[in-house]
Amino acid sequence: MQLPSSLLENAVAQFAKLPGIGKKTALRLVLHLLKQDVNEVQLFGETIAKMRRDIQFCKRCHNISDGSVCTICSNTMRNQQVICVVENIRDVIAIESTQQFNGTYHILGGIISPLDGIGPDQLTIESLVTRINVEKVEELVFALSPNIQGDTTIYYIQKKIANANCRITTIARGIAFGGELEYADEMTLARSIVNRLPVQQYVK
Amino acid sequence: MQLPSSLLENAVAQFAKLPGIGKKTALRLVLHLLKQDVNEVQLFGETIAKMRRDIQFCKRCHNISDGSVCTICSNTMRNQQVICVVENIRDVIAIESTQQFNGTYHILGGIISPLDGIGPDQLTIESLVTRINVEKVEELVFALSPNIQGDTTIYYIQKKIANANCRITTIARGIAFGGELEYADEMTLARSIVNRLPVQQYVK
Repeated sequence: MQLPSSLLENAVAQFAKLPGIGKKTALRLVLHLLKQDVNEVQLFGETIAKMRRDIQFCKRCHNISDGSVCTICSNTMRNQQVICVVENIRDVIAIESTQQFNGTYHILGGIISPLDGIGPDQLTIESLVTRINVEKVEELVFALSPNIQGDTTIYYIQKKIANANCRITTIARGIAFGGELEYADEMTLARSIVNRLPVQQYVK
Repeated sequence: MQLPSSLLENAVAQFAKLPGIGKKTALRLVLHLLKQDVNEVQLFGETIAKMRRDIQFCKRCHNISDGSVCTICSNTMRNQQVICVVENIRDVIAIESTQQFNGTYHILGGIISPLDGIGPDQLTIESLVTRINVEKVEELVFALSPNIQGDTTIYYIQKKIANANCRITTIARGIAFGGELEYADEMTLARSIVNRLPVQQYVK
């Protein structure tokens, strides 16, 4: 695909670097921007660059933040003694949108996965251990991927904080709402039977 | 979806304005950029803004251009006496990628469509007529959409240049290569029979 202008070509190349965007889609986006007002497009470019330049990470939970401490960690209405351990920022957004969790988070930045070359040192485990030792943490809720890597990570952290006096839980695995029993995989169905709940609790 | 930072939120909002990109995809793109180098993202923003600010349109054919005359119009190797009339820049890119056309283009910026409120005055028809009267144009090739609006546009332009001494053609409509006859629509099949070609010409 030969483009009639090097400016256009550069812009298309920039968009085509983004995940899931090929050269044709990139061209469509750039031609769309070309129809917009100059100031609008200027603002687009500046907003993206400013976001990357000025964004900070909370020094306590490693969440994205406008300042050095994020809005969740600085919110006194939230239970600062409960920490939900997640892999990445997207998990925080997903859990926050349920409006069912009133504690704080700790973002590991991944899970232990030797095959991908990710060891405990690349993650924020050390800072989590410090948090648990220094703050009076009551509960640690693991919300990690239900696979070998996730389980390894939980096991590793559990070992590290063996002396700490806090409750360790993990989010429930089971049949999804609206899911049909016959299509559920064996592992999930087996776990949901082992971890069955009294009905009144389920209704609540 | 509540985001933990206003910088992030602004960047997501900017991406979500683009066609075919929703809020979830926008977040995915922004989180991807967040993992890139600061200078890389700065370059991304600047490239897009610069493209919109500095890009020009060829004063002769209205194609995108780095200067006041595009590379096609200023190319003396191309036949400047043949003009292919197209709707938009994407059509130019499509025809150029076939490498079968050696003339120049004229981009109308749309086609006459009263239902969408697009009349001849919104298009670059006046400048096309001037071109035909001033330059010694030998052939005008219409490559417009094969519908009522396209036909209306051809008819309108033909009327306008009735006195000009140039050949007027349109690109061939017919069964696409690899297309099965039984699945072709009647209109296309009918046209391809009416406009049948001698076999030697087809082979060439």
